[in-house]
Amino acid sequence: MDLNGRKALSFVHHDFEDLEYWYPVYRLREAGMIVETAGEKAGESYRGKYGVPATSDIAFPDAEPAEYELLLVPGGWAPDKLRRFPEVIEITKRMNADGKVIGQICHAGWVLISAGILNGKRVTSTPGIRDDMTNAGATWVNEAVVVDGNLVSSRRPPDLPAYLAALIETLSKR
Amino acid sequence: MDLNGRKALSFVHHDFEDLEYWYPVYRLREAGMIVETAGEKAGESYRGKYGVPATSDIAFPDAEPAEYELLLVPGGWAPDKLRRFPEVIEITKRMNADGKVIGQICHAGWVLISAGILNGKRVTSTPGIRDDMTNAGATWVNEAVVVDGNLVSSRRPPDLPAYLAALIETLSKR
Repeated sequence: MDLNGRKALSFVHHDFEDLEYWYPVYRLREAGMIVETAGEKAGESYRGKYGVPATSDIAFPDAEPAEYELLLVPGGWAPDKLRRFPEVIEITKRMNADGKVIGQICHAGWVLISAGILNGKRVTSTPGIRDDMTNAGATWVNEAVVVDGNLVSSRRPPDLPAYLAALIETLSKR
Repeated sequence: MDLNGRKALSFVHHDFEDLEYWYPVYRLREAGMIVETAGEKAGESYRGKYGVPATSDIAFPDAEPAEYELLLVPGGWAPDKLRRFPEVIEITKRMNADGKVIGQICHAGWVLISAGILNGKRVTSTPGIRDDMTNAGATWVNEAVVVDGNLVSSRRPPDLPAYLAALIETLSKR
């Protein structure tokens, strides 16, 4: 269960759900991981839905998927913005194709839908995008956290403890 | 290191620092603890500095210190409000007298100052209240987390991973 020194990448953009972005980032740092954040530009300041700030470490085109064991897609409205960047879609597709762990919470599924990686997968999300998830070929269930192979999904902030426990367990088995 | 079913109490009031309140609450729930929150009234909705919501489980007068192994005092501006409630001060004094673990971060030290429990203790906090902490008799150091007996203190949100690791380690030894 030693995650020390292993690397994760989190996407970030405006109107991320404040806790859904920050809890995983801090929690995996607590577990010893190096968590880097990628935004539209490097060193750019973003604000969560409620206004909690976050700064990107690198720009999307400079994120090298091979470096990371885990991809974190935050919830909130940020996924609506993130899915518009071809590099975000490419990183997501590449990490999925390489079997890397991908964590999605709340509205994050929009990014995975646009990456075309949900067909036949068992997932959860905010009920708000349930129809989008099922139209993308996923089987949607209403559970705090769902693990299907490399995909770990969760619904909303109160699920964060279960979400991170599942992400850490999934990473620890590798 | 099994915290399962053990109980913690967190104070809550308006303008808490959003991550400094929620990261400890969710993190200790992830570790299996039952974390209850006490506010001015039971079932009252509070907003963090940035607007992240939180609801109190119980009112200050109904919090029974003997039930809890850990007291969490969040940062932000909430401590300026919390220290004005005699019940908050009484709970803090009682739990300290009973040797319970007390976690304070950022501006949370104001509550511990008013409870008169910092004399001779080694602590950290936001540098903004360093003078208040030293005037209360504490030795102030600029470190991510400081443990002195039952008191665990930290400075600011980026210290949260170190703060929670120290809180969990301190609780696990008991």
